[in-house]
Amino acid sequence: LTGPRAKRRHVRSLTGDFPEVDEKGQEKWPKGDEKSWKAAMRDLHTDLPEVTRSIVNHVQTSLARAPYNIDDFGAYQAAALSVRDNLIVNWNATQLEYSRKSPKRAYYLSLEFLMGRTLSNALLNLGLLDNYSSSLSSLGFSLEDVLVQERDAALGNGGLGRLAACYLDSSATQELPYGIFQQLIKADDGSQLEAPDPWLDHQNPWELPRLDITYEVRFYGNAQRWSEGTGRATWSGGQEVLAVAYDVMIPGYGTKCTNNLRLWESKPKRGFDLQSFNAGNYERAVESSNSAAAITSVLYPNDHTSFGKELRLKQQYFWTAASLADIMRRFKHLEKPISEFADYNAIQLNDTHPTLSIVELMRILLDEEELTWDNAWTIVTNTFFFTNHTVLPEALEKWPVPLMEHLLPRHMQIIFDIKKFPGDREKFSRLSLIEEGFPKQVRMANLAVVGSKKVNGVAELHSDLVKKNLLPDFVDFYGKSKFGNVTNGITPRRWLDQCNPSLSALITDTLKLDRNVWLKDLYKLEGLVAHLDDPQFQARWAAVKHQNKERLALFVERQLGLKVNADAMFDVQIKRLHEYKRQTLNILGVIHRYLLIKNKTPEERKKIVKKVVFFAGKAAPGYYIAKLTIRLIVNVARVINADPDTSQYLSLFFLPDYSVSLAEILIPASDISQHISTAGTEASGTSNMKFCLNGGLLVGTVDGANIEIAEEVGEDNVFFFGHLTPDVEDLRYQHTYHPVPVEQKSPALAHVLNAVSSGIFGGDGVYEPLLNTIRQGDFYILTEDFDSYIRALEMVDEAYADRTEWTKKSIRTTAKMGKFSSDRAIQDYAQEYWNVESIKL
Amino acid sequence: LTGPRAKRRHVRSLTGDFPEVDEKGQEKWPKGDEKSWKAAMRDLHTDLPEVTRSIVNHVQTSLARAPYNIDDFGAYQAAALSVRDNLIVNWNATQLEYSRKSPKRAYYLSLEFLMGRTLSNALLNLGLLDNYSSSLSSLGFSLEDVLVQERDAALGNGGLGRLAACYLDSSATQELPYGIFQQLIKADDGSQLEAPDPWLDHQNPWELPRLDITYEVRFYGNAQRWSEGTGRATWSGGQEVLAVAYDVMIPGYGTKCTNNLRLWESKPKRGFDLQSFNAGNYERAVESSNSAAAITSVLYPNDHTSFGKELRLKQQYFWTAASLADIMRRFKHLEKPISEFADYNAIQLNDTHPTLSIVELMRILLDEEELTWDNAWTIVTNTFFFTNHTVLPEALEKWPVPLMEHLLPRHMQIIFDIKKFPGDREKFSRLSLIEEGFPKQVRMANLAVVGSKKVNGVAELHSDLVKKNLLPDFVDFYGKSKFGNVTNGITPRRWLDQCNPSLSALITDTLKLDRNVWLKDLYKLEGLVAHLDDPQFQARWAAVKHQNKERLALFVERQLGLKVNADAMFDVQIKRLHEYKRQTLNILGVIHRYLLIKNKTPEERKKIVKKVVFFAGKAAPGYYIAKLTIRLIVNVARVINADPDTSQYLSLFFLPDYSVSLAEILIPASDISQHISTAGTEASGTSNMKFCLNGGLLVGTVDGANIEIAEEVGEDNVFFFGHLTPDVEDLRYQHTYHPVPVEQKSPALAHVLNAVSSGIFGGDGVYEPLLNTIRQGDFYILTEDFDSYIRALEMVDEAYADRTEWTKKSIRTTAKMGKFSSDRAIQDYAQEYWNVESIKL
Ligand SMILES: Cc1ncc(COP(=O)(O)O)c(C=O)c1O
Ligand SMILES: Cc1ncc(COP(=O)(O)O)c(C=O)c1O
Repeated sequence: LTGPRAKRRHVRSLTGDFPEVDEKGQEKWPKGDEKSWKAAMRDLHTDLPEVTRSIVNHVQTSLARAPYNIDDFGAYQAAALSVRDNLIVNWNATQLEYSRKSPKRAYYLSLEFLMGRTLSNALLNLGLLDNYSSSLSSLGFSLEDVLVQERDAALGNGGLGRLAACYLDSSATQELPYGIFQQLIKADDGSQLEAPDPWLDHQNPWELPRLDITYEVRFYGNAQRWSEGTGRATWSGGQEVLAVAYDVMIPGYGTKCTNNLRLWESKPKRGFDLQSFNAGNYERAVESSNSAAAITSVLYPNDHTSFGKELRLKQQYFWTAASLADIMRRFKHLEKPISEFADYNAIQLNDTHPTLSIVELMRILLDEEELTWDNAWTIVTNTFFFTNHTVLPEALEKWPVPLMEHLLPRHMQIIFDIKKFPGDREKFSRLSLIEEGFPKQVRMANLAVVGSKKVNGVAELHSDLVKKNLLPDFVDFYGKSKFGNVTNGITPRRWLDQCNPSLSALITDTLKLDRNVWLKDLYKLEGLVAHLDDPQFQARWAAVKHQNKERLALFVERQLGLKVNADAMFDVQIKRLHEYKRQTLNILGVIHRYLLIKNKTPEERKKIVKKVVFFAGKAAPGYYIAKLTIRLIVNVARVINADPDTSQYLSLFFLPDYSVSLAEILIPASDISQHISTAGTEASGTSNMKFCLNGGLLVGTVDGANIEIAEEVGEDNVFFFGHLTPDVEDLRYQHTYHPVPVEQKSPALAHVLNAVSSGIFGGDGVYEPLLNTIRQGDFYILTEDFDSYIRALEMVDEAYADRTEWTKKSIRTTAKMGKFSSDRAIQDYAQEYWNVESIKL
Repeated sequence: LTGPRAKRRHVRSLTGDFPEVDEKGQEKWPKGDEKSWKAAMRDLHTDLPEVTRSIVNHVQTSLARAPYNIDDFGAYQAAALSVRDNLIVNWNATQLEYSRKSPKRAYYLSLEFLMGRTLSNALLNLGLLDNYSSSLSSLGFSLEDVLVQERDAALGNGGLGRLAACYLDSSATQELPYGIFQQLIKADDGSQLEAPDPWLDHQNPWELPRLDITYEVRFYGNAQRWSEGTGRATWSGGQEVLAVAYDVMIPGYGTKCTNNLRLWESKPKRGFDLQSFNAGNYERAVESSNSAAAITSVLYPNDHTSFGKELRLKQQYFWTAASLADIMRRFKHLEKPISEFADYNAIQLNDTHPTLSIVELMRILLDEEELTWDNAWTIVTNTFFFTNHTVLPEALEKWPVPLMEHLLPRHMQIIFDIKKFPGDREKFSRLSLIEEGFPKQVRMANLAVVGSKKVNGVAELHSDLVKKNLLPDFVDFYGKSKFGNVTNGITPRRWLDQCNPSLSALITDTLKLDRNVWLKDLYKLEGLVAHLDDPQFQARWAAVKHQNKERLALFVERQLGLKVNADAMFDVQIKRLHEYKRQTLNILGVIHRYLLIKNKTPEERKKIVKKVVFFAGKAAPGYYIAKLTIRLIVNVARVINADPDTSQYLSLFFLPDYSVSLAEILIPASDISQHISTAGTEASGTSNMKFCLNGGLLVGTVDGANIEIAEEVGEDNVFFFGHLTPDVEDLRYQHTYHPVPVEQKSPALAHVLNAVSSGIFGGDGVYEPLLNTIRQGDFYILTEDFDSYIRALEMVDEAYADRTEWTKKSIRTTAKMGKFSSDRAIQDYAQEYWNVESIKL
């Protein structure tokens, strides 16, 4: 069988066309009368009357409202639409320039993008904050009230998703990597994760529907191999679903450059199952059309766990197939030989979620482009780059072979062929893509490594662990140079200037640099060190921190109706609830502190450092232990906040519904923050960088990016504790084979556990399963780390007593955070991985 | 049990607010600085540069495209958005004025609205056709090419749905009935009925999402009665679904008045079934959210048949409940006592589909407003008006009591109570709302009659049949004055000026009246009679007809690749395929003619009137006999168009995908059109009026509005045939009890049937089931009507031979169509039913 060629119908698309040139090299005007067009075209609307007119016209037309019927939310919508119009002008110019120049493009494939709010960020990046503020005020609204109307775009679970968002900002700011970023979750419904109001999102002003850009994506069906040896096959039948593109504009800071984030939504290919419809079975026809739409209707809320569900695999393939088709269409437009594909495209995989794109590109090159296996494989392995985000075994994705064979028969064939084909078969066979067992499973990380040009971890320690523990056979086979490190970064635009405008102003004032300069070259912060001993500067620095604490206090009072003492030390731990992140250690530490205070005389208590502890973070809906931890925190808070003996010295808040917007309030207000994962488990962390950038000191384990932060700011400015990574394995071994009771290892911890068991925080034994994870097994070595954790917190108290020294620590911390700008990270990728350059507009 | 009050959460809505006044009676500016607002507000954009700027800006921003990436469809979108902005300005002004004046409003509740295309109609009504045409041409596009890019909004099955659309146009044109029309099908998916591309509709520029206007709609659950005698109950539990409003602007012709058509879309109340979601069962959570969305995802494609499916009942309740909640909210806003409800609201039911609104209003008044039964019933029966559209037994809606009890337990209670409560119980019990049987069924027409103030049919004959045959007991009980007639009407804007611009221009020229005048007072057409004998006028009239025939010929050639002789007589039958409409009679007549011609010598044939027959129309997907009729037509066409002996004398076309837009091309091109339903079955028909308005002569039975058309234009200008209504019952009785073979009743027909059976049109016996409906039973009395039908067509041929006489008939027909303007019909309703008056803007 040589089989008919499976031609891809290259759908006409209405973006990406660019001017033709005449014989003199002049660009030709495409259609109609050039003068009429040009006279009618608009540029940015930036001056005050223009801005006001644009907002008011959107009230009248886009919202179809009279001024009588407009509230803060309406004002937000109108302002957002008006800003969107401005973004589009830059976006059009950027995309046109990319089309003109046809440079190599980098594509960042990610299943998650945790964007947060857009309006304030867009105004900042466009430099239009002031004019919109004045304009709105003349119309009767305050910018602050309008900004908070926006719902966070929460298309992600945590660090991995937020990292992608920071990288978007940096790439546009650096006019680099020219690229169209491809995001793989439909904004609409991702937020359903927590929101009871999905319909609101339907008029998301930041999403441009691209209804003319659609691709067909196939599931199930049959893969029929062609004649032996070609490696080709024809895949047909099954279900065909349509992917429709939505674009989100990503403006760079202080540049016209506005990049693209492309989302995909699933739609039925035909409105209906026409067969059922024609047979008069309308109910059934409706059902089947819904099954297509369901593909993009939920973002799995799990973080650091693999899922194993067919719908999730469908999502992964749907999004990668649409993205690959789109990349291929854009490349075809250049009319270059297919062999040059990797010279024009670099595709970065954000963890294993989009790994199927490797197999999908093979499928396209083999079955549609009819390349030989070796040529196809050369292209693929020069195109992809893979970032690993975790070494936790439960987070390593695996897909059962029978499920893959059923849903993606052609891809399963190719994976089996990858196992067989490459050069040194003997050695290669050790790099097992398939895990034995019942059922057999495809190891996605291994597949990603094999199909990529380079692989990286996200912090020094983590990249080492990837090489030594996770993939030693691969390092052996490919050599070390394939494996690198790019330490994560964060965008200082959102995580300093936007969330902490007072600190940004103080820095600008102190450095005597335009903020445009240091926000784009964060190493400039080092200039603050020269002012470390200036008492006036110290006072202003402390005042900013205090002001941010008061802002947080006000927020808590409004949200929860509870008073917060802004003069106390603020201690913050905010991140996904997960056993490895050890929120449990923190809450047990809080109880320990509470019991200590409770036992003191009123006289003794006066010497205590007053402290307010904040938690925030979501648990995956099905994660029982994580939910129990939240319950414990909330109930401990209930008890200790109501205890008149202690409440002025120690109080505790769990802020619900953690989000980027909440992080923007909490981070600038922290005196210390906790990043206390069991050593070797947190790949990098990024919120640690955010706190430190805002002058909050770090309490943490020797893990992830904590280590590099300490290297930068100096070990005496962080509070480290706990066992190191190499010890952990051994301790766990001991737990299993030579268990020692908690009472013996840490009497203090045992005391705390018993207090919880005794029911003083209520619960009738409800917390026992949580406590037993510590008493038995203790996989995350809380028993070994508890005492040194308590000691670290005591050192924090001591240090905090000397406020001047503390402020200097805080200043130094901020000053040394230059390395952690996502601009640096993106530059690392661009130069050392993707080989793309920036384009000046 | 007196039960807790089921309070409706009156959702804040952002439309319908109006200015407060200060103590001097001056309107207060609501928010911000009045000057800033007013300086920034826009009015209509009507002059050429404004129009061009508006189109180009929409290209740049709303479409986010460069001029390099714009095609006809893009130009359509940009032009549509620009026109929409203009409409919105008028719409805002209209709605604000309604809110200011708070007049009585009429609501037209309909499950169907067959709107057709909007752009050209909006341009016509706004008077902006010329400027948009020039503007587009300067940008490199032709208006004609742009207009045809629009997909018909086909939210209806046929006459009933198109009638609603004509009434919308007329009510806005007459600045009447101030109203917000409530439409009950979501535009998005209704068109899936035939379209394989539902996603295109997502960016329908004519729909304004009103995401802040939502109501909760309940299904299933329990209805718990309060203490005996109150008639009240609490309905709780079950499934709650959200209705979200979408508005479509309906501009009047030659007025600022722009009314509203409100659509409803179903959405899950929460993004998800949170319980499944929290238990980690995301797949299930997605499913359940889809089940809510499914409610509005399909328009049942059946016409004149009842459905009996739970999903359809869900739709009916969903749409009526959302509409009633909306009407109630608007009324509450006026702060009038509830007892005055009927003074401010008239609700017209377009057939029985929205009948549940009667029960829903009872439920609201009893359970939420806590009125007594009698007070509630008085309000209800002064609020509703019911239009019956059919006396066909199979089209009369019935719902099984067990289904109603399950889906709408509270409504079923109320229906049982209606049966019991009213004054004269003895007599009333005869007016059976419930049909006995297994299962028992609720008769919706009877319920609609009982709950309405007045009832009407849609043509004189039909209204008589409603009284005498369908509802004699009710006439007996309520007296005759409750039952009236409003003959249907059509809007001359779309059905003459827009679809036949040359004829419109000729009329304007001849009447020496601004077209604004006669299009708003269609009786002015009578002025044409004075010119009947003017040969020059006759010649121009005939030339227009010829030109329209050539336009149709060109269209057929482009669509089907077939040549059409525009010099032949054009004979058109276009409407839903249904046995009662007797397309079968027509095709059998065509075959008869074919066989006759085939039998003639070439010499004889020269005397024949050349004729082209057109069919168009959809069959419900499950309607076997109707589909078989289409198949027969298509195959007869294949044979006779290919027969060199006959094809120049007779050809036949079935145009696929009948729609409003297709009707707009066919109707102006007809010499004759066929409206040949079995007497007593077609309630009115409206396409008959459209053909006659365009000077096409009518071949028809003495049925529906044909009768009144003949009264107006004179019997000698129509070609009537067939048995009259009173005979039909008797003939059917004969068919059953004294059957006579076809051969005896009509040898000509028998010959034709045998020809079909013999296989000359192929099919291997496939048509036998269709032919047997005639040979056996013959419910629609084709055997009795065939010979007189053929005779009528012969008379058509004779009359057509004298072209001058024919043209005069054509002119007279158009001239006498004044009565059939939907403006007249709407005025009838406004004055004699709703008691609402127009408001000058
Ligand atoms: C909403 C949200 N979730 C998760 C993270 C990642 O936090 P961490 O690095 O502590 O895991 C961040 C970082 O700021 C965030 O804003
Ligand atoms: C698309 C469509 N369907 C149905 C009808 C109603 O046709 P009739 O009155 O012949 O049933 C019309 C009237 O023009 C129409 O345009």
